[in-house]
Amino acid sequence: MKKFINKVDDMLAESLAGFAAAHADLVSLHLDPNYLTRKLKAHNKVAIISGGGSGHEPLHAGYIGYGMLDAACPGHVFTSPSPDQMLAAAQAVQADKGILFIVKNYAGDVMNFEMAAEMLPFENAKVLVTDDCAVINSTYTTGRRGVAGTVIVEKCVGSLAETGASLQACKALGDKVNARTASIGAALTSCTVPAAGRPTFDLSENDIEMGVGIHGEPGRRRITLRSADELVEEMVEAILSDFNLRSINSQTEALLLINGFGGTPLMELYLIYNIAAKLFKSKDVNIVRSLVGNYVTALDMAGASITLCMLDDEIKQHWDAPVHTAGLRWGL
Amino acid sequence: MKKFINKVDDMLAESLAGFAAAHADLVSLHLDPNYLTRKLKAHNKVAIISGGGSGHEPLHAGYIGYGMLDAACPGHVFTSPSPDQMLAAAQAVQADKGILFIVKNYAGDVMNFEMAAEMLPFENAKVLVTDDCAVINSTYTTGRRGVAGTVIVEKCVGSLAETGASLQACKALGDKVNARTASIGAALTSCTVPAAGRPTFDLSENDIEMGVGIHGEPGRRRITLRSADELVEEMVEAILSDFNLRSINSQTEALLLINGFGGTPLMELYLIYNIAAKLFKSKDVNIVRSLVGNYVTALDMAGASITLCMLDDEIKQHWDAPVHTAGLRWGL
Repeated sequence: MKKFINKVDDMLAESLAGFAAAHADLVSLHLDPNYLTRKLKAHNKVAIISGGGSGHEPLHAGYIGYGMLDAACPGHVFTSPSPDQMLAAAQAVQADKGILFIVKNYAGDVMNFEMAAEMLPFENAKVLVTDDCAVINSTYTTGRRGVAGTVIVEKCVGSLAETGASLQACKALGDKVNARTASIGAALTSCTVPAAGRPTFDLSENDIEMGVGIHGEPGRRRITLRSADELVEEMVEAILSDFNLRSINSQTEALLLINGFGGTPLMELYLIYNIAAKLFKSKDVNIVRSLVGNYVTALDMAGASITLCMLDDEIKQHWDAPVHTAGLRWGL
Repeated sequence: MKKFINKVDDMLAESLAGFAAAHADLVSLHLDPNYLTRKLKAHNKVAIISGGGSGHEPLHAGYIGYGMLDAACPGHVFTSPSPDQMLAAAQAVQADKGILFIVKNYAGDVMNFEMAAEMLPFENAKVLVTDDCAVINSTYTTGRRGVAGTVIVEKCVGSLAETGASLQACKALGDKVNARTASIGAALTSCTVPAAGRPTFDLSENDIEMGVGIHGEPGRRRITLRSADELVEEMVEAILSDFNLRSINSQTEALLLINGFGGTPLMELYLIYNIAAKLFKSKDVNIVRSLVGNYVTALDMAGASITLCMLDDEIKQHWDAPVHTAGLRWGL
């Protein structure tokens, strides 16, 4: 295992310390239990909290700041944070309008966020992100997995919360964005979890895992290496079929996110964008917003995912609104 | 070779098309000769042009926009752009105050930019970036290589140019930033150039190339795999020694850039930041600005570089100024 690392057990704490030091203007780090909050506590708004296993950076701590999250709870690599982290984060950032948890649909995350929610003395609600259309049920999931679409949910809900909107309104927007978003990923290599020290799964030099999860969970099928045109066509078809199955009209304006898993260079991500945008346009999807880069990663996995979010005026307005976080920033 | 790619010969054109489509609000792409410009032509300012081989994305096209570059000339992967690209770009963006070329110090780039400069009917000047303190002279270089410090030069000069400053003033600032910046990289793996189809150099599972170049050029020495603490300490020492050799006082405010080479996840880059920032502080370097991410890459190489720029009031002011590009954005 070749990584910039000291002791495996210290990796998360050292990385969090580096993140907090590099972005000391934006975030504060609290240890034991581990959570990060905005540097300046917000007031009179719904507090938006997310979290999950580490290894998906910049998700979630990289999205703390004005216009997005109030706090994030990082678990160990690919491991759910514990209820005490979520409770402590909620106590720290609650701002008189309740707490909204944004939770990717993995069994451990859901269970622990629900335990925290039950113990919490404040009004709270949850948005469950389930954008991955690759498979139903998976290694760690009942139902669909939550993947790169999480960034879009966090961005839009975070924007609405800044306006002083109610907990119910924030939850409704999050649920709507999730319902209008579909993603699928493909892996060229496995990732290597530091504590395991070897690749999570075996993938030969000629194979690709189509529909892979962001922890290396199995996808739809293993296929032989093929051209980017063919790979992206299968991914775009999967997304469009998913919208059809869910009776969501895709003849509308859309946001296209090409997300790298951590080991794939930007040059390839833009090549994927080029193919995907043309294919979507040929199906009357009007791409009016774009995001290309490493936003929801899987450690060092070489691979990428395609996410399409069907916009409406409300979603577009909140996507465009100013945001100031380590991972996403515009208008400020 | 596992990449998201169709034909090797088409990779650059397809990737550029994707970049231009994803950022159609910011840039225009011109083909044959290949160059990219701002969407909205600037007026009455020094036009800032950079370029170089592709494979270092987001450098350079990702830094086109308000507060940074007016145009960029992408060569093929790890190959210099040609003088006709630079001439055409200069004709397209010249804005009555001359042209400043920002050139990383590689023999081919320097030769071709100089040929273009001689043929150009406008006043022009050049800033040569030579921030890599790993080696003097290298595979493609006489003198020091230009690496991640290029982003800092482009950002500061770009900001000054927006104020209507003269060509001489812009060149002077670029030269000053370069003189106050030092970088060194380390590779955990080679990169794979698409046209070659195999790794550029061999590196065993237990070896690290200390001082590697951004095209996989040899570094100072090959060392065995060791802890991040030990690796980063060697890199920080190299940078501090370089400032001592150049008689630059490092007891001052500084910008610390931890740059990923394309295949290294953010979690590791923040771990490196944590170590480097502490070491610099122990040597009385006061880190007041930070940047962590993939800014000057080497295709899919796993590895990272550390860059330190000694700030003064002028450099800090221009670093902080608003910028709106695909790769760097704040204040707008």
